[in-house]
Amino acid sequence: MEIGGGSIVVMGGPCSVDTEENVLEAARAVKAAGGHILRGGAFKPRTSPYAFRGHGEKGLHILAAARAETGLPVITEVMDARDVQLVAKHADILQIGARNSQNYTLLDEVGRSGKPVLLKRGMSSTIEEWLLAAEYVLSHGNRDVILCERGIRTFETATRFTFDVNAIPLVKKLSHLPLIGDPSHATGKWDLVEPVALAAIAAGADGLEVEVHPNPDHALSDGAQSLTPKNFAKLMDRVRTLGDAIGRPVAPAYNEPVAARKAS
Amino acid sequence: MEIGGGSIVVMGGPCSVDTEENVLEAARAVKAAGGHILRGGAFKPRTSPYAFRGHGEKGLHILAAARAETGLPVITEVMDARDVQLVAKHADILQIGARNSQNYTLLDEVGRSGKPVLLKRGMSSTIEEWLLAAEYVLSHGNRDVILCERGIRTFETATRFTFDVNAIPLVKKLSHLPLIGDPSHATGKWDLVEPVALAAIAAGADGLEVEVHPNPDHALSDGAQSLTPKNFAKLMDRVRTLGDAIGRPVAPAYNEPVAARKAS
Amino acid sequence: MEIGGGSIVVMGGPCSVDTEENVLEAARAVKAAGGHILRGGAFKPRTSPYAFRGHGEKGLHILAAARAETGLPVITEVMDARDVQLVAKHADILQIGARNSQNYTLLDEVGRSGKPVLLKRGMSSTIEEWLLAAEYVLSHGNRDVILCERGIRTFETATRFTFDVNAIPLVKKLSHLPLIGDPSHATGKWDLVEPVALAAIAAGADGLEVEVHPNPDHALSDGAQSLTPKNFAKLMDRVRTLGDAIGRPVAPAYNEPVAARKAS
Amino acid sequence: MEIGGGSIVVMGGPCSVDTEENVLEAARAVKAAGGHILRGGAFKPRTSPYAFRGHGEKGLHILAAARAETGLPVITEVMDARDVQLVAKHADILQIGARNSQNYTLLDEVGRSGKPVLLKRGMSSTIEEWLLAAEYVLSHGNRDVILCERGIRTFETATRFTFDVNAIPLVKKLSHLPLIGDPSHATGKWDLVEPVALAAIAAGADGLEVEVHPNPDHALSDGAQSLTPKNFAKLMDRVRTLGDAIGRPVAPAYNEPVAARKAS
Repeated sequence: MEIGGGSIVVMGGPCSVDTEENVLEAARAVKAAGGHILRGGAFKPRTSPYAFRGHGEKGLHILAAARAETGLPVITEVMDARDVQLVAKHADILQIGARNSQNYTLLDEVGRSGKPVLLKRGMSSTIEEWLLAAEYVLSHGNRDVILCERGIRTFETATRFTFDVNAIPLVKKLSHLPLIGDPSHATGKWDLVEPVALAAIAAGADGLEVEVHPNPDHALSDGAQSLTPKNFAKLMDRVRTLGDAIGRPVAPAYNEPVAARKAS
Repeated sequence: MEIGGGSIVVMGGPCSVDTEENVLEAARAVKAAGGHILRGGAFKPRTSPYAFRGHGEKGLHILAAARAETGLPVITEVMDARDVQLVAKHADILQIGARNSQNYTLLDEVGRSGKPVLLKRGMSSTIEEWLLAAEYVLSHGNRDVILCERGIRTFETATRFTFDVNAIPLVKKLSHLPLIGDPSHATGKWDLVEPVALAAIAAGADGLEVEVHPNPDHALSDGAQSLTPKNFAKLMDRVRTLGDAIGRPVAPAYNEPVAARKAS
Repeated sequence: MEIGGGSIVVMGGPCSVDTEENVLEAARAVKAAGGHILRGGAFKPRTSPYAFRGHGEKGLHILAAARAETGLPVITEVMDARDVQLVAKHADILQIGARNSQNYTLLDEVGRSGKPVLLKRGMSSTIEEWLLAAEYVLSHGNRDVILCERGIRTFETATRFTFDVNAIPLVKKLSHLPLIGDPSHATGKWDLVEPVALAAIAAGADGLEVEVHPNPDHALSDGAQSLTPKNFAKLMDRVRTLGDAIGRPVAPAYNEPVAARKAS
Repeated sequence: MEIGGGSIVVMGGPCSVDTEENVLEAARAVKAAGGHILRGGAFKPRTSPYAFRGHGEKGLHILAAARAETGLPVITEVMDARDVQLVAKHADILQIGARNSQNYTLLDEVGRSGKPVLLKRGMSSTIEEWLLAAEYVLSHGNRDVILCERGIRTFETATRFTFDVNAIPLVKKLSHLPLIGDPSHATGKWDLVEPVALAAIAAGADGLEVEVHPNPDHALSDGAQSLTPKNFAKLMDRVRTLGDAIGRPVAPAYNEPVAARKAS
């Protein structure tokens, strides 16, 4: 499977890794609907220190178990340069979140990790700053960088962030890097996720990262923006229809043997 | 022709009305490519008083001539409450620009005009403020209001504005009003117009307003964001393909007799 | 009295003109505390058409009555080019509000009025756009333009707007025009008005426009950001102390005969 | 010396530690003008990986040498949780920069360091997010947190950032923490530093952090916003005059023996 190779790749899963049951259920739903990669947060950057901050290493084991069952590769966030080796041992793709998008020593470390890196745009990063943050990873010889537009901070408060759809074609012109969209964080509202996901694809995105939870009302974080398995399946159908029409089909369902799992 | 009735309506034409030849050529190109409405500015709000401010009434006559030949209805901006009757005499739809989106006495006046009104979002208007601005028009009993997302002002300077694609599904949920997108002003760059136009449609917009000029390099304003006739035709093809795939086809080409011309 | 002549000029009064009693009481309080000009809105731009939109011409008469008693010159907003002559008949300074700061035909009209014009910065106007808006007035030969920084729209929602204090020294370097600060709209909270007013003066502003109401809880608009007469007097004391220290004293109390009233 | 104790404390020095000569010259200038703390960056977060990224540990030794000569305590940025102990060995105050203001594992680590922490506001952090970031440090029992407003990212490009002067009185109401202003980063222009510094103090800030370089044109970073020693001395004079007038005098020059050096 290749991200940025002309077909659309979709990552889905819970914001936070909570119970093994929930993560497994989400993983099965992602796979059943034709999703390609399981996302889930073991280390969670939370605005307040008193909020749930993730299960840490235990969460990585839960993700690995879900991978063992479903065969889906796993993407998860790493927040600390000291954790890169640990996270790299369990994950297939390392995610750098928006709040750490200019944490340069962390970018250096994932650049040295040998793992594909998904780099979210900072909530107030210009496109130029974002591409230069990617350069931190690339400068260590790690060429597997995936960019992710996840909304920028603006004056509009009716949505959590403003999805900068202009950035998609502009980044595709400026850079050779693959670029996906995260409509979940960009909107903060589950019922806006599908239309914004379709917009991202129509504008040229190479894929999506979407929050999926078997029971959004009980998610430990970001429930309001999470899709149920049923709505995720509906989203996949719509993306498939759109992708077929515009000549960028959804990538085939992920059925490679676990041993061969490699994101790019 | 109805805007917001399930099929996609496209408005195209030059930013500023310049010569009759150019406007006619643009109008023919819009019609030939399957566009529905001719746009063009006779009264131009310009940041500097020393820039070209439009041909005024003479420009209205040029637009009327283009309508007489092509049969396309005309949309044009009105900037001053004192001009509403004059503009309404010549135009089929009155446009309120972003800079006048909270010019409440002008909104009152177009509310009383009996003409359909296209209300652009202010560059720093929240969605709530925009809908309340529409309420100024509606409160006079004028129910033919079309909303237009044209980009908001953010910190990002790589594009002229940031097209708020989140706003499209959100406004469709909050309001019964039709909503179109203006990818020309939102991006400020002609080569981003097509992908952002497609994103707008994929997100649920009822149509588009796009700048088209036979010779963008010589346009009196906004040349950098104007499509050539050839690129506009290409855009229409892509919109047609997308619209067919998602069940919202482009409206049939406009062939009604001039007398029956009515935008909604 | 001259604004921009090296001493500090303060405008105070209610956001909206409500009753003659309240306006008179506010005017007396402004004068008693050493304020120089009475502000009050007769024509009110309101986000919703269903909010109180001002008493219009009747409000102008109330302001004129307050001037007759106190001798304070009057500043009031004009929203519509058709009202410029009417407002100019009653007011000493014409105010252009933030929402009309790019209403160019209105700017043209106040440029022709022969009256001093206070031009508020648009909530999303760059400094360059603001100075070019002033140019609309100046280009008609009206050289009595006063700029007013009143806060810009940003992502921060803890205050109504963000007072752009950087703009004060920058505009003073770029332009010869006098510049005042409006801490009431910029903060939206009466208890932040004094510190932000002092900041504006320390940064180089030539004066202030402050909302004062005898009974803020019953103001028809903007009560939350209005000072009581007592707090306005306290503000004036603090401004006086600061101004004396930095060599830009508060202008002498306004005691010129009514006939000589002239703002610049 | 106490920050937040009613008198004004000023930190000055070069953006980047470059040569020992320059740092010593800057330190002497800061001390001679009555500044209290020497700032200088040994670890530099730079937008591009190819820009000068600081001298690292060698820079810490240069700062320590400047402290040994002048007796001024030293504040310097720490960017990586792995460097906290090293930096804490040499510095008197640990600075968390804007880009790391939501790097929560770094905040945890400086919370455990036992050193005073200066926490800059993130360039798109709301006031609430900023105070919650401080809570990460406080939650480890480290009560010596100093907040620093350094400008937020807005649409205005005439200055590097927009100094949010509203935040100063608001944070003083919401929190017991001391709060200083950084007019150098907030404006990006040396000739705006003094007026914005005065505004910060007038609004209630407990101090300032200002970039000073003996030869701004040759600074390795941020030369355009650095004051010469002469202009820093002029700034200190103006701050002294203002502080005396408003009852918050500049703290006495720092003459305590080196052994007693403690920031709060």
